[in-house]
Amino acid sequence: MTDLEDELRALVGAGHVLVDGDLRAPYETDWTRRFTGTARCVVRPATTGEVAAVLRACAAAGAPIVVQGGNTGLVGAGVPAGGEVLVSLARLDRLEPVDEVEAQVTAGAGVTLEKLQAHARAAGLDFGVDLAARSAATVGGMIATNAGGIRVLRHGSMRAQVAGVEAVLPDGTVLTRLSGLAKDNTGYDLTQLLAGSEGTLAVVTRARLRLVPLLPARAVALVAVAGTGAALDLLAAARSRLATLSAAEIFYPDGLDLVRAYARLPAPFGEPAGAYVVLECAGRTDPTDEILETLSTCDAVLDATVASDRAGLDRLWSYRESHTEAVSAAGVPTKLDVCVPLGELSALVTELPGTVAAVAPDARVITFGHLNEGNLHLNVLGAGERAEQVTDAVLRLVAAHRGTISSEHGVGRAKAPWLPLSRTPEEIAAMRRIKAALDPAGLLNPGVLLPA
Amino acid sequence: MTDLEDELRALVGAGHVLVDGDLRAPYETDWTRRFTGTARCVVRPATTGEVAAVLRACAAAGAPIVVQGGNTGLVGAGVPAGGEVLVSLARLDRLEPVDEVEAQVTAGAGVTLEKLQAHARAAGLDFGVDLAARSAATVGGMIATNAGGIRVLRHGSMRAQVAGVEAVLPDGTVLTRLSGLAKDNTGYDLTQLLAGSEGTLAVVTRARLRLVPLLPARAVALVAVAGTGAALDLLAAARSRLATLSAAEIFYPDGLDLVRAYARLPAPFGEPAGAYVVLECAGRTDPTDEILETLSTCDAVLDATVASDRAGLDRLWSYRESHTEAVSAAGVPTKLDVCVPLGELSALVTELPGTVAAVAPDARVITFGHLNEGNLHLNVLGAGERAEQVTDAVLRLVAAHRGTISSEHGVGRAKAPWLPLSRTPEEIAAMRRIKAALDPAGLLNPGVLLPA
Ligand SMILES: Cc1cc2nc3c(=O)[nH]c(=O)nc-3n(C[C@H](O)[C@H](O)[C@H](O)COP(=O)(O)OP(=O)(O)OC[C@H]3O[C@@H](n4cnc5c(N)ncnc54)[C@H](O)[C@@H]3O)c2cc1C
Ligand SMILES: Cc1cc2nc3c(=O)[nH]c(=O)nc-3n(C[C@H](O)[C@H](O)[C@H](O)COP(=O)(O)OP(=O)(O)OC[C@H]3O[C@@H](n4cnc5c(N)ncnc54)[C@H](O)[C@@H]3O)c2cc1C
Repeated sequence: MTDLEDELRALVGAGHVLVDGDLRAPYETDWTRRFTGTARCVVRPATTGEVAAVLRACAAAGAPIVVQGGNTGLVGAGVPAGGEVLVSLARLDRLEPVDEVEAQVTAGAGVTLEKLQAHARAAGLDFGVDLAARSAATVGGMIATNAGGIRVLRHGSMRAQVAGVEAVLPDGTVLTRLSGLAKDNTGYDLTQLLAGSEGTLAVVTRARLRLVPLLPARAVALVAVAGTGAALDLLAAARSRLATLSAAEIFYPDGLDLVRAYARLPAPFGEPAGAYVVLECAGRTDPTDEILETLSTCDAVLDATVASDRAGLDRLWSYRESHTEAVSAAGVPTKLDVCVPLGELSALVTELPGTVAAVAPDARVITFGHLNEGNLHLNVLGAGERAEQVTDAVLRLVAAHRGTISSEHGVGRAKAPWLPLSRTPEEIAAMRRIKAALDPAGLLNPGVLLPA
Repeated sequence: MTDLEDELRALVGAGHVLVDGDLRAPYETDWTRRFTGTARCVVRPATTGEVAAVLRACAAAGAPIVVQGGNTGLVGAGVPAGGEVLVSLARLDRLEPVDEVEAQVTAGAGVTLEKLQAHARAAGLDFGVDLAARSAATVGGMIATNAGGIRVLRHGSMRAQVAGVEAVLPDGTVLTRLSGLAKDNTGYDLTQLLAGSEGTLAVVTRARLRLVPLLPARAVALVAVAGTGAALDLLAAARSRLATLSAAEIFYPDGLDLVRAYARLPAPFGEPAGAYVVLECAGRTDPTDEILETLSTCDAVLDATVASDRAGLDRLWSYRESHTEAVSAAGVPTKLDVCVPLGELSALVTELPGTVAAVAPDARVITFGHLNEGNLHLNVLGAGERAEQVTDAVLRLVAAHRGTISSEHGVGRAKAPWLPLSRTPEEIAAMRRIKAALDPAGLLNPGVLLPA
């Protein structure tokens, strides 16, 4: 062991510098098992001061760093490429009391979404972002990836929930902006710059988060429709008529089969359909009638089942929410996460199988996602050696439909080579100038986001 | 005339390079008449390409630039300090057709808010930001200042409406991001970095703007209450009960007197009150009953008048909206625009007159603003030679109440010396690093935002 490890031990305690392979292992492979690498060591600071000291020590040693929260990221950005010091924020898990007047709370970067939700709900409020990885995904990781999820339709992405952050630059400088004022036009919005920066500019240590009203009355409809076009018609009807609409999700028959086998769920309808839409409404009073009325007047609806009790909500949601896990249980997927204008969605879904088959004849694509934003998660199973070619072909197809190569998961290491499909050379050059301004030695998450 | 002026003439046409003092004059003094300076010349490019060429020519000549939109800014940021080339974006006034599926529109930086609103409304949609300077304030200026206004409660500030921008860096590099995808996590959000950057990083040339549903049915209540505390009680009731609430504004008796004299308005109530609140609701159906019911059950209401016809709405709004003009007609005000946590608002309002009187005994403060965000515009009249001391005393008082020195107007030249009251030395250093990354020669809006 070198001087750096000794120094890190002195800073955070010997028990929180993991050098042994077994101890490091859980941090070194990502959730999908596709990305894995060896860390020089894993460091687990417990406070902002410790994070700053760790970053200063690494900077002095010229040691590259990879930043990790809950390790649920899907683009290989939070695990080592090889040889980095892995800084885990998991121990920064303090939740301060909810400020009920301002409807805000300050949370440590390592607080999980599930703990944050429980904390907010105990105060009669709620958190605006929700996603299936809630038990492990952290506040810091969600800010760094600008996480989306199933409530973007109602409350926006993670960046809309963040009133301010505390963050540490690679040289150990601590930036603190936790006042949470409703409006504050005093210069560059560093918080918004860090949202979605994937740990390449600074390490988030705390955040001032906005909370939303708790809407206790929910109703969910699982709706069978003929295909993507019909799903969009249903969405248009729901958006214009359902003031309490809080989610609109889509999946397809292949995914349903996979999910049913994995989660042992019954067939939702007597007849199979071309696509399935989950609509959720949330309000202060039961939105069931409102939802039923909209469904009854929409021609796109082939069949529908509606629930508003806890068990029924969970059951209907599980058809959609089990997709990520069911796909992973079936193999190591090549995961793509794209967004196109709604007008391009049907064409994309139609052209996708052919595009994949042309480069990987044995592969299949499981498609699901957030209908309202035209955001599809494309999970290619069985691409084997052809994963890169599949990625390339699909991302080019998406770009041809005026879409983006990453809608919510980020670019990470997985998509970095394709960044030029979504950002111009001038934009990438400007990003590099900003990266160099805040991380001149290029120590934070090297290889993530910006192509090498 | 030097080489640079000749070069600029060749780029944009001789008629659009104004060197004559009379022609320059309207651009050289700000709306408040407090800030004025001589421009080297005024340049009026008509396209993004011309803007890029102008910036390149200025960079080659080492000539500092001041960027101007509608010149309605209130912090002296859009007028010269002395000797800069003034680049006016007024001619970039193209509005593309509204995209009704995506509810978005692409607008040139020089499009005025009023034209944008009319364009959106003609397509059955609306723009989410509204403010009294609508006839002249431009899209580019509103992005550069992250303008707020009277609908922040419902739709957020300008940054929330901007899906992407086209902008030119000081070296002439054009950054283009107008795809307007609902979700796009492919790297640093340069758009959000430029929002609120006050023309110090890049010149915005076009923007992709989100539109909101047009809510044709409006009702406004002008409510008399005992003071700031009662106004906050009314706000709490309105926020929890009025799902269609779209604005909540406040003003005080001094301001009412000034406005009545200026705009020749009758007394709104038989008895004077301690404070006045304007509540507006907007929906698809007339919200009058909803508003009346909330008012009738709220103890804070002393008296109220409600309107829902066009003439009545305009009349009630004019009590609040005429404040800026009435104050300017009364003299050259020292304008402060601050935001404190709602829990500090009453104390701030109470302590303000004493704080001002201690440094400028003959001055008076006209206070009004956006109640929902704790955002008060403090207009000091009669400070004379003591304007700087008044500014200093009031901004320190605001900081002591955990507030910010600029809530929506920006820092500009007017507040730059006080930036350290709202941003830490570490934050200011990080901002300077970003400024140096994008504008290494410091040519764009020197002296604005970052203290010299
Ligand atoms: C079952 C499942 C469902 C999912 N559903 C969604 C979904 O609907 N929407 C969605 O957007 N995502 C989804 N994800 C992806 C993932 O949950 C999110 O990206 C999440 O935000 C990652 O948080 P994390 O704490 O696990 O971050 P990690 O995976 O640890 O890290 C992710 C990135 O953030 C950086 N990072 C982490 N912490 C910090 C910090 N404190 N400071 C700076 N950088 C940091 C890392 O370096 C890395 O670049 C899902 C994942 C799974 C496994
Ligand atoms: C009567 C009145 C009422 C007002 N009410 C409000 C209110 O409620 N809320 C509010 O927030 N403001 C308000 N304002 C202030 C003002 O209207 C806003 O700041 C507005 O956004 C300025 O737009 P502009 O086009 O006039 O910009 P300008 O005054 O020309 O410039 C303002 C700043 O933006 C920069 N800038 C302008 N155009 C560009 C561009 N294309 N690219 C880069 N930088 C640029 C300038 O350099 C300067 O720093 C009010 C002003 C008046 C006169």
